[in-house]
Amino acid sequence: MKSRGAGWRSVLSNVRGQLAETAVARDRSGGTAKAERDLLRRSGLLLLSVPCEYGGIGASWIDIFGAVRELAQVDPSLAHLFAFQHLQIGSILLYASREQQASLLRGTVEQGWFWGNALNPRDARTHLTADGTGFLLDGIKSFCSGARDSDRLLVSTHDARGGFHIAALPTVREGITVLDDWDNMGQRQTDSGTVSFERVAVAQHEVLGPPGPFGTRASLRACLAQTVLGMIYLGIAQGALEQAITFTREQSRPWPGSGVETALEDAYIQQHYGEFHVALAGAEALSERALAQLKAAWDEGDKLGAEGRGEAAVAIATFKVAAMKAGLDIATRLFEVTGARATHARHGFDRYWRNLRTHSLHDPVDYKLKDLGCFILTGRYPVPGFYS
Amino acid sequence: MKSRGAGWRSVLSNVRGQLAETAVARDRSGGTAKAERDLLRRSGLLLLSVPCEYGGIGASWIDIFGAVRELAQVDPSLAHLFAFQHLQIGSILLYASREQQASLLRGTVEQGWFWGNALNPRDARTHLTADGTGFLLDGIKSFCSGARDSDRLLVSTHDARGGFHIAALPTVREGITVLDDWDNMGQRQTDSGTVSFERVAVAQHEVLGPPGPFGTRASLRACLAQTVLGMIYLGIAQGALEQAITFTREQSRPWPGSGVETALEDAYIQQHYGEFHVALAGAEALSERALAQLKAAWDEGDKLGAEGRGEAAVAIATFKVAAMKAGLDIATRLFEVTGARATHARHGFDRYWRNLRTHSLHDPVDYKLKDLGCFILTGRYPVPGFYS
Amino acid sequence: MKSRGAGWRSVLSNVRGQLAETAVARDRSGGTAKAERDLLRRSGLLLLSVPCEYGGIGASWIDIFGAVRELAQVDPSLAHLFAFQHLQIGSILLYASREQQASLLRGTVEQGWFWGNALNPRDARTHLTADGTGFLLDGIKSFCSGARDSDRLLVSTHDARGGFHIAALPTVREGITVLDDWDNMGQRQTDSGTVSFERVAVAQHEVLGPPGPFGTRASLRACLAQTVLGMIYLGIAQGALEQAITFTREQSRPWPGSGVETALEDAYIQQHYGEFHVALAGAEALSERALAQLKAAWDEGDKLGAEGRGEAAVAIATFKVAAMKAGLDIATRLFEVTGARATHARHGFDRYWRNLRTHSLHDPVDYKLKDLGCFILTGRYPVPGFYS
Amino acid sequence: MKSRGAGWRSVLSNVRGQLAETAVARDRSGGTAKAERDLLRRSGLLLLSVPCEYGGIGASWIDIFGAVRELAQVDPSLAHLFAFQHLQIGSILLYASREQQASLLRGTVEQGWFWGNALNPRDARTHLTADGTGFLLDGIKSFCSGARDSDRLLVSTHDARGGFHIAALPTVREGITVLDDWDNMGQRQTDSGTVSFERVAVAQHEVLGPPGPFGTRASLRACLAQTVLGMIYLGIAQGALEQAITFTREQSRPWPGSGVETALEDAYIQQHYGEFHVALAGAEALSERALAQLKAAWDEGDKLGAEGRGEAAVAIATFKVAAMKAGLDIATRLFEVTGARATHARHGFDRYWRNLRTHSLHDPVDYKLKDLGCFILTGRYPVPGFYS
Repeated sequence: MKSRGAGWRSVLSNVRGQLAETAVARDRSGGTAKAERDLLRRSGLLLLSVPCEYGGIGASWIDIFGAVRELAQVDPSLAHLFAFQHLQIGSILLYASREQQASLLRGTVEQGWFWGNALNPRDARTHLTADGTGFLLDGIKSFCSGARDSDRLLVSTHDARGGFHIAALPTVREGITVLDDWDNMGQRQTDSGTVSFERVAVAQHEVLGPPGPFGTRASLRACLAQTVLGMIYLGIAQGALEQAITFTREQSRPWPGSGVETALEDAYIQQHYGEFHVALAGAEALSERALAQLKAAWDEGDKLGAEGRGEAAVAIATFKVAAMKAGLDIATRLFEVTGARATHARHGFDRYWRNLRTHSLHDPVDYKLKDLGCFILTGRYPVPGFYS
Repeated sequence: MKSRGAGWRSVLSNVRGQLAETAVARDRSGGTAKAERDLLRRSGLLLLSVPCEYGGIGASWIDIFGAVRELAQVDPSLAHLFAFQHLQIGSILLYASREQQASLLRGTVEQGWFWGNALNPRDARTHLTADGTGFLLDGIKSFCSGARDSDRLLVSTHDARGGFHIAALPTVREGITVLDDWDNMGQRQTDSGTVSFERVAVAQHEVLGPPGPFGTRASLRACLAQTVLGMIYLGIAQGALEQAITFTREQSRPWPGSGVETALEDAYIQQHYGEFHVALAGAEALSERALAQLKAAWDEGDKLGAEGRGEAAVAIATFKVAAMKAGLDIATRLFEVTGARATHARHGFDRYWRNLRTHSLHDPVDYKLKDLGCFILTGRYPVPGFYS
Repeated sequence: MKSRGAGWRSVLSNVRGQLAETAVARDRSGGTAKAERDLLRRSGLLLLSVPCEYGGIGASWIDIFGAVRELAQVDPSLAHLFAFQHLQIGSILLYASREQQASLLRGTVEQGWFWGNALNPRDARTHLTADGTGFLLDGIKSFCSGARDSDRLLVSTHDARGGFHIAALPTVREGITVLDDWDNMGQRQTDSGTVSFERVAVAQHEVLGPPGPFGTRASLRACLAQTVLGMIYLGIAQGALEQAITFTREQSRPWPGSGVETALEDAYIQQHYGEFHVALAGAEALSERALAQLKAAWDEGDKLGAEGRGEAAVAIATFKVAAMKAGLDIATRLFEVTGARATHARHGFDRYWRNLRTHSLHDPVDYKLKDLGCFILTGRYPVPGFYS
Repeated sequence: MKSRGAGWRSVLSNVRGQLAETAVARDRSGGTAKAERDLLRRSGLLLLSVPCEYGGIGASWIDIFGAVRELAQVDPSLAHLFAFQHLQIGSILLYASREQQASLLRGTVEQGWFWGNALNPRDARTHLTADGTGFLLDGIKSFCSGARDSDRLLVSTHDARGGFHIAALPTVREGITVLDDWDNMGQRQTDSGTVSFERVAVAQHEVLGPPGPFGTRASLRACLAQTVLGMIYLGIAQGALEQAITFTREQSRPWPGSGVETALEDAYIQQHYGEFHVALAGAEALSERALAQLKAAWDEGDKLGAEGRGEAAVAIATFKVAAMKAGLDIATRLFEVTGARATHARHGFDRYWRNLRTHSLHDPVDYKLKDLGCFILTGRYPVPGFYS
């Protein structure tokens, strides 16, 4: 079922269908979704973001994020892993030299690498020390989504002088241990656990750059990462709404005092759905604006300036906040339109809230709002960083 | 300052500036804004919606509603009258025969008619009786926006058999009395008072149609009317936000316990603004979707089907609800980002809330949400009517 | 650790401590909490509501519901079972004849009966048919909280003429099968599954009454049941807040851009807690009003009239809505004051939301609000029934 | 209609009725409510807070604030002036020496003084300089509620060394000018304008103290002031709800698509009212808690410690936030339960929002929430000051 050219859309639809079948059960079990990760590998969809010149599909970010959203509607854990593959590839496109890009992306195409993340910038416990012509990497990283069962890792680290570096390493490199310690209330199959590094040899050419992780264009990585978050929130919200509608139509019963024959006709149930629709439509419309801005900024290449980057960051932050709010509300109130019997574990309807709640804590919405407030008050764009 | 061709945008900007100067004072006084109505007359902007073939400007509904929004940012009463001019012209384009259109729209261009509304469909107190070759119109109508100082009126009425008709009449026609009885808490210069009709002669050719007010295409009038409402809400919200920003920047003081030097740096003030921005950006994005759908439906002409009409109605309702909610919240909380001194009457900042609150009661938001909830639950479009 | 007289408060505190230790693990496993049910049996707290004259503790409803709330802070499933014991005893006091009360309550004291519920009034699938001097009971009941491992059941059923009856039966009675089919997203150890009845012999004296389940005083059962719900919501909210505070103090980290040294000092975290406090304090204050009204109505005995019953019902409904809203908000936002690491499964912090969300669907909050709205508009009390 | 002993309650009811008759008209005109201020003077109610030993009524703060709330239901401007009379008397009881109390309160009783406020602690533009055996006072004060037409003023000022003092002065004292510059969007008859002081002679005995404005007991003034605010918010909310109910019952029409005969039966209107009731009942219950804590703290006299003061401050802040939120929501949404015709200026229904919105900006609700959040996180009471 390899996807090439326009054919990837039907492959995606097929993968989505397969993930949906087992998503509730896998949410309960947690752990590494080995079979589903391999399904993604076989599908060819891991190459969506690899430019055609390296043998990839070369899809636009608009299409890639559309795919993330579609998968998140049924399985936000796997959507997360899928999105992080493309985030790492995007990081390589932003940080790596031409030679590194060629080597790493050709490798991705030819070997079918699934990339894992060990880049959590808020965890400063890794360090890089010079060792002969190369370096040694030591320390630990938390929240390393997709590191388990990965083929390659992007790792962030500091050197002795405080310099910040990103290295691309094979996950099997001696000294790297990916712990199986992710057991959280949501996004349960994202393997967002800990990776430890003990005297891991890092060659100079494995440290990405130039240009490396600094500069206006490189800072687009945060824009990609924030868009991943927002698109997963939006997908969760859409999936929750779709399931709720089906349940209300097929299984909900009217309340005795409601005076109507079916739950569909209940004035309050209709009102809740109306509110869901308005909030979700707003988030969707904002996602389109955000993706358009992101694409425009990406397409500017090295000419990208503070304004283009800033407008993208603002549009993405706006969208992300709206998607989170709409999603949390739908995930909580969907039970008021489906009823008590919708709480049966077989439906797994609580996973919408658990997944969204967990994922939405990546960085505080309060500070996103603060950034946006600052922007409209002063016209100053959010300071580029790893979260904004 | 007549506006023709592309020049109307700078005329609009000029008119907007003049309205802004006196808007606070005129909100206090209420009454008929004779001078400002004449300004609109002289500006040529009353011809925006008149097709070029009749000598008008032939602007698209997207541009016309953009102009409504811009005026509403500074003066939602005059924006309302301006929008209602175009709503009446749109009604003529939808209801009137080719001959009637030619006569009424050429008259509008040549005589500079300002159209008033006497079409409130919820008020069934007018009736039409046969009289010779024509009719007599009797009764009263409430909420007749823009009837005072108007040159022509669109009037709705029932005949003895329950038939529903729309007539286009000169306001000076004998038997028509436009009362000066609009004294409400908001939209104070919309002259939305009562018109009485006493044995008013109506000629057959003055009754619009065929096609008249029925049929799918004719039902677009409700879409136009609902878009007017939403665009005015949006303009009010944008105007409120803009004024609040200026005040916070220039006049607000930091709270003693805040630990910051300027109100701009206050964490809570920034958060409020961030929330304003997210809600307003959502409403704006939805307005673009709605206008695109409205234009698409309009452009289908007589081929317009239930789906095209329905999609437009849903998009407009979604936008209108979002604009109202964002606007009411901003209009209330803007004082929390400006402070106690922003309540001085000279600023007139309460008018945002009064105008929006008044205008947003045109038809209940609860039933708009119900329509939307029904739609996503069942796929059934809102039943075309005068409010949906 | 039998509790008699005033000593029961320290017993309660002890039981609460023991339940807290294993609540997270038991939430994950679900199923019947046999050991904890036996702990409640041994504690003597199952006799709190049994009047002294029958050998019980004779605590007031204010004290009993206080105990429910305290247990719900740490384990809302066991609090629910504990509360339902007292709801059944309350039902006996309301429905049963003096002789039945003596027999059933003395049995409760002497044999240590744990009562289960098979009274779901919305499920009309049980029926009672005459059989000799007694009856036969057939059919099934859903949502039978506490039926598993129970000693006695209160069962509701209809007879062939539509008459409604409540019977008190030993759970071991031939023909009664308590299914182990409760596997829901929250309140996971309440065993709220299905009970089936197959030609179950019911003696005349096992059918409660006179007075039976009708009349103003008997209708206080709904008041008791609604208070159970509200007190569990309130306890969940208090428990969630308490745990969040501890986590913020001991484990949360300040956000990099916050400019503060500890999460405690973060302006937004403080604001969230302020909002939690205001909402929760409101619900607490309303719970006191509700309990006072409930006690007043109870104490009126057979003289209870429509007004006393109505005032209690209104106060309880008001409190219940406020507790649910405060609780859902705290259960969702507590993660914004604790951070991403609070989502680790070891903390089980999602259980607050899952428990409250599940339990709050017992009857729709929309219809509770409708009842209250009707009341203040018309002065008419909610019609006594099983849900209001 | 002098009020003495228990008779003051019927006097209050009478005054309230008279104020209600003209409140809408006086809201429009603004300015000094001379006739109504004189009505309050004649009523004897200005002596409610004066202890019996000085010839006053000696009502408890619970009763006094109940009276404030009742007046605020119909006329929050006059309620504000009435409340500020008692706030000044309370300040004298807290700050003044026994001799000063005797003199000022006997004067109040015998001469019928209406006290005005010139105490705005955030405005530091007044200063006191030594002059012979006394002082000279210069500068200006803003937000001086009730200064116009007052007989006596409490004035706050700093001396050259930064010392803070409160003086009690006759309003007619040479050099004092009370400006007629209050023209704000709400609380329009509170005369909260500017007072200027030019070389105003102040005798030593006119400066209050010992004990003066410092110390734990003296800090209760902020508790009184915050309670005034909360009780006025609560009264406004209650008045708005009462008027809305009457309008819905008597004048609102059902929406065409609602399927009901009267607005009373509309499901959404009932729901809004249900929500109003729950929020308002919560604020009312919290007001009772707050008043009980305030009374307890007051009654401790000089023995009042940090805990008693802190508990009162927390309870008052909690109540005040809840009352403001409930009130703003009711004041905005009341139009959704009454309809478009409720916006007619003759009803003056916008004044609820304008009055509450204006008054609720006295000090930022954000910082009140911050104080409360700090308190529950750390157990530290709000630092006593003029706003907390």
